[in-house]
Amino acid sequence: MPSTPSCADAAAPRRARDVGLACGRLKPGPRNAITDVPGVRVGHCTLSDGATQTGVTAILPHGGNLYRDKPVAAADVLNGFGKSVGLTQVEELGALETPILLTNTLSVGTVATALIRHAIAANPDIGRTTATVNPVVMECNDGPLNDIQALAVTEAHAAAALAEALASADGAAVAVGSVGAGRGMSCFGFKGGIGTASRRIKLDGKRCHLGVLVLANFGRAGELRLPDGRRVGPPPQDSDPEKGSVIVIAATDAPLDHRQLRRVIRRAGVGLARVGSFWGHGSGDIALGFTTANRIDHDETADSVPFRVLNERRIDALFEAMAEATQEAVLDALVAATPVTGRDGATRPCLSALLTAAF
Amino acid sequence: MPSTPSCADAAAPRRARDVGLACGRLKPGPRNAITDVPGVRVGHCTLSDGATQTGVTAILPHGGNLYRDKPVAAADVLNGFGKSVGLTQVEELGALETPILLTNTLSVGTVATALIRHAIAANPDIGRTTATVNPVVMECNDGPLNDIQALAVTEAHAAAALAEALASADGAAVAVGSVGAGRGMSCFGFKGGIGTASRRIKLDGKRCHLGVLVLANFGRAGELRLPDGRRVGPPPQDSDPEKGSVIVIAATDAPLDHRQLRRVIRRAGVGLARVGSFWGHGSGDIALGFTTANRIDHDETADSVPFRVLNERRIDALFEAMAEATQEAVLDALVAATPVTGRDGATRPCLSALLTAAF
Amino acid sequence: MPSTPSCADAAAPRRARDVGLACGRLKPGPRNAITDVPGVRVGHCTLSDGATQTGVTAILPHGGNLYRDKPVAAADVLNGFGKSVGLTQVEELGALETPILLTNTLSVGTVATALIRHAIAANPDIGRTTATVNPVVMECNDGPLNDIQALAVTEAHAAAALAEALASADGAAVAVGSVGAGRGMSCFGFKGGIGTASRRIKLDGKRCHLGVLVLANFGRAGELRLPDGRRVGPPPQDSDPEKGSVIVIAATDAPLDHRQLRRVIRRAGVGLARVGSFWGHGSGDIALGFTTANRIDHDETADSVPFRVLNERRIDALFEAMAEATQEAVLDALVAATPVTGRDGATRPCLSALLTAAF
Amino acid sequence: MPSTPSCADAAAPRRARDVGLACGRLKPGPRNAITDVPGVRVGHCTLSDGATQTGVTAILPHGGNLYRDKPVAAADVLNGFGKSVGLTQVEELGALETPILLTNTLSVGTVATALIRHAIAANPDIGRTTATVNPVVMECNDGPLNDIQALAVTEAHAAAALAEALASADGAAVAVGSVGAGRGMSCFGFKGGIGTASRRIKLDGKRCHLGVLVLANFGRAGELRLPDGRRVGPPPQDSDPEKGSVIVIAATDAPLDHRQLRRVIRRAGVGLARVGSFWGHGSGDIALGFTTANRIDHDETADSVPFRVLNERRIDALFEAMAEATQEAVLDALVAATPVTGRDGATRPCLSALLTAAF
Repeated sequence: MPSTPSCADAAAPRRARDVGLACGRLKPGPRNAITDVPGVRVGHCTLSDGATQTGVTAILPHGGNLYRDKPVAAADVLNGFGKSVGLTQVEELGALETPILLTNTLSVGTVATALIRHAIAANPDIGRTTATVNPVVMECNDGPLNDIQALAVTEAHAAAALAEALASADGAAVAVGSVGAGRGMSCFGFKGGIGTASRRIKLDGKRCHLGVLVLANFGRAGELRLPDGRRVGPPPQDSDPEKGSVIVIAATDAPLDHRQLRRVIRRAGVGLARVGSFWGHGSGDIALGFTTANRIDHDETADSVPFRVLNERRIDALFEAMAEATQEAVLDALVAATPVTGRDGATRPCLSALLTAAF
Repeated sequence: MPSTPSCADAAAPRRARDVGLACGRLKPGPRNAITDVPGVRVGHCTLSDGATQTGVTAILPHGGNLYRDKPVAAADVLNGFGKSVGLTQVEELGALETPILLTNTLSVGTVATALIRHAIAANPDIGRTTATVNPVVMECNDGPLNDIQALAVTEAHAAAALAEALASADGAAVAVGSVGAGRGMSCFGFKGGIGTASRRIKLDGKRCHLGVLVLANFGRAGELRLPDGRRVGPPPQDSDPEKGSVIVIAATDAPLDHRQLRRVIRRAGVGLARVGSFWGHGSGDIALGFTTANRIDHDETADSVPFRVLNERRIDALFEAMAEATQEAVLDALVAATPVTGRDGATRPCLSALLTAAF
Repeated sequence: MPSTPSCADAAAPRRARDVGLACGRLKPGPRNAITDVPGVRVGHCTLSDGATQTGVTAILPHGGNLYRDKPVAAADVLNGFGKSVGLTQVEELGALETPILLTNTLSVGTVATALIRHAIAANPDIGRTTATVNPVVMECNDGPLNDIQALAVTEAHAAAALAEALASADGAAVAVGSVGAGRGMSCFGFKGGIGTASRRIKLDGKRCHLGVLVLANFGRAGELRLPDGRRVGPPPQDSDPEKGSVIVIAATDAPLDHRQLRRVIRRAGVGLARVGSFWGHGSGDIALGFTTANRIDHDETADSVPFRVLNERRIDALFEAMAEATQEAVLDALVAATPVTGRDGATRPCLSALLTAAF
Repeated sequence: MPSTPSCADAAAPRRARDVGLACGRLKPGPRNAITDVPGVRVGHCTLSDGATQTGVTAILPHGGNLYRDKPVAAADVLNGFGKSVGLTQVEELGALETPILLTNTLSVGTVATALIRHAIAANPDIGRTTATVNPVVMECNDGPLNDIQALAVTEAHAAAALAEALASADGAAVAVGSVGAGRGMSCFGFKGGIGTASRRIKLDGKRCHLGVLVLANFGRAGELRLPDGRRVGPPPQDSDPEKGSVIVIAATDAPLDHRQLRRVIRRAGVGLARVGSFWGHGSGDIALGFTTANRIDHDETADSVPFRVLNERRIDALFEAMAEATQEAVLDALVAATPVTGRDGATRPCLSALLTAAF
């Protein structure tokens, strides 16, 4: 039986940088988290009860009404063996109109319905006097640790994750590791989960950030690459390569249009490759990004509106930031992950234990 | 309150050809329906209770276990203002592994969950010893006639549509008009809904078919074009162009690979343009197709398998069939649609009434 | 032997509207031509000498240095059986940096080289202290009328078309019919070629235009559809469906970003479908569009720049304009086409003759 | 002045493995080259005369008439800041019908014309009684070392590269380093050029190969990553990040359809990331692949034909092979590159010198 939505936070004690796993050369933001982008909020609801080891993670681009005030967004599918919902419309319209929810593969439908109700509650004109709403839900398969067939995640769990995100302060730290949707995830044979990282970029004399949050559930045992080139991990065991996936959420306040944003988030693939992945067949490797610098007013009455876009010759800074932050966010998930005993007593070793031993 | 899943609603009395609205020059199959492709089955569950005028339609590529025996499939997004789920994986892997369910926009999550349970029931290894499952659910917004905010569609309704499809005989006629997912749909200011059509193709001396089923909920009042060029329809009224969409499902037993199939179904756009649409901004115009001629065995042990593909120089026959059958299936939905009184007493005129008057 | 680049050939005497073939409901601009978009210029170089019946057409988005001042651009491939060059970069960077040249399929390489030289002449830093240049050349196969194997088009012909365009006045009429790249083209069994049309759009109280120029060389004999629904044309004869293609160039001064522009030009497919095409296998049906309202300064030093984008809820006006103008531009090419006797004495009937007889 | 097409081979003395730079865990083929795929042939024409340091490289999928016997092919654009030609049709039709030629950016047009003439010479029906031909030419910008504005490459040079490839024996070694199109290329601040590698795969008990050839002209100085994680290279100097690009050509005899092949070649991005790239803005990073296991007969008369496709659950082996071979081919180009003094006396250090010093 699933737990009631208690969402007792199990914030991870350590981050990738705490154990020397910084990536790249750009500087991180103050939290080294997706929440370094002003307005972005994250909340989790974690289910941990016997064979049920799963959850929901909510990312809010800003604290207001997203349906009314839509950030420009883009999606890029590196490997489409995945069941995310909402990407078609994001790519057509270049905007996000709900929070992003992450969960396990088989709970996507339930969580999407929760997002719909959440949007209707705030916007009673949906489906009546205005358009419908496009819920964005992304997923990984936590089946090896979680009894995924139980469909334990309820709409109430999704609502709890949303509520925690909404209640959090702007710029708050992000709970990482075996929390929220990351509860039952595995990564390179280790315990995986939620990780985050950010990078600073200076544009026109002003500081911007690009922040990444990953749901890390990919990679074959023994193939994890640390930034210094070391290959670490448990030997391949009962790993089924069909059961992976990684979701990469990118947030920024740099001024980008849809096309530029799509170019930026595509570099998630660089970070994943550097950490040891070859974007395996069974792994739904999907990136979704948004910028808070350009927003679309649902009720706009003018025929045209001003946007601010990047001088494309500066975009390499964002490419690097995306590659570095993705790489580091995966390591962050691995370092922060705490032990979970799941379905049939299954467990995964924790990278932090191995690194501590190695230190 | 939604009805219990009775699914009684009536097969439409008339078809497009009955009132002289044949399209193109190719010959239809015996039923002039998607079920002219051997193995294909269709079922509906119709909800009609006051303000609740909606439903679910199920299309089965064959009567067996689709997860085990996956038809080659492809998706093409003409205009991505839509909330269909499952398309990302269809495009990556080129296969379908569940039935296709159609419903209203806000019920997609619930119906996807029903498909997941349906797949697990037949395949208990899903999410345990094999991969998860990719439910394919497509949708239109029936908000103008149906109280879409009520989220009246339940998993039981989806199961009922699946059961009706499974119980139907191979090659059975398809109920069209204001049934299933088509219950509350509107089209060019008229009552819309479910329509179907098919075309015969001869390949290597053998007869094949391409069949189309549409969920028709698009087009502006006054812009419907009949095959002879006449423009008909009620004058524009309370129409909100944000609320449309059309889903085009294509089935064939012609031997195609994923790339060829994608080329074929893209010609849905030709049929839609000929019937008077310009693929409006607010209309999620999406085509999904499958061929039963090439199948993927989920448990295949050989490293490679034989496929049969079309000599591409013959593909124009399939392009024409797709364009013609899409055009005619839309007209079929319009002709077959029976009156529906929905939310706040809203109604749409029926094309058949207008045509009868005009005859 | 090809002619020297005289480029004398005659402007067509008549336009589609002169014979009653107006399409749609939106009003055309003053010239009903792509040159209704301020700054746009068109020039042709026509080769007519025995079996050599071909040429080059140049479209300039503006009269300045396009490499320094790049209009936002997008490409959409309806059917990619074509050999256009430059589309990959247009889609990645969302900009055009050379004029667009149209010619026959086998002359694309030569014409691209001419564009490269043209760009270097004006920008000696290309390939030295700045990037290289992306020539955009699009094509159709005029083989049935022109001795295409002769590769008769030279760099000088391309330069002549560019020079004619540059010398033309802003807002000048466009020569249509059997001119420039359209010299040897066929369309629905008739003589094809160059056609144009435009539509007015009002945005924020200001008048904008969307203009289309087509190189029309597609469609099967007997399948041309006139706006009133009549199907006209010579009976199918020696038509080889492998030899078609249509290029649709769209220009606008409406404020669009790359994503919006791509959505707009995709509606070229609607216009082509309405005129009787099903986007046949052998026909490279490709649209390219640009907006002069947003430009990219090659030497920009600021890190970000202002753009103006459309309120997407107004985009249906541009979709309609694109569909209507494409449809009418094809009819314009057909009506304007004058007789050409080409390779082995081959000819095509002219639609204008048939329509005159029918009037 | 360009040299006459002497094409004096400067085969590199060393390969990546000779200096310990093997990548990954799969075994290479006998030559560790793209020519390990039976039938594949490579030829170069190298221009080295003062400021002219450039050339042409030809890859033949087989030694027969490619227009008549087309291998299944696919293209994947990682970063489309490039001017390759022919990709649109490759993606639409999933086949290659000419050799692949590589050259410098501004010579693409000339080389494409040479390919057209080459195809017509062998197939006089092109553009007469059958379709036209789609030349595939890919490029990088060698401007920093080569006087690219001189447009020194002629059709004769392209023909010479083709002739050398045709004359080579099946399974011959490939000349690598500063040869052919690689003559003037730079990579991570070092001298770049042509590199190759291959991997063995066992399918259904039979040995297949996947071979890669790269034209390596990308990467920022100081960011090259060796397989052991070391970061090497000259400090950033006059490097202009706008001037890069890398072309990755993949050949295989594994049975794949277009969709599968596209998935495989996309993993070029993994190899590039591992070697230190983040797919920079100014770098046209494009992969093109073909399989000789499925071919399309231009003159096929049957309506459908047999293909053999991979059991997708085995595709990870090809993904790994692609990632490893791409990574190693880049290192191969760097190791094999011999010194070149180009325009204005510009040079690039050679990695082999640095590695020898370091050994």
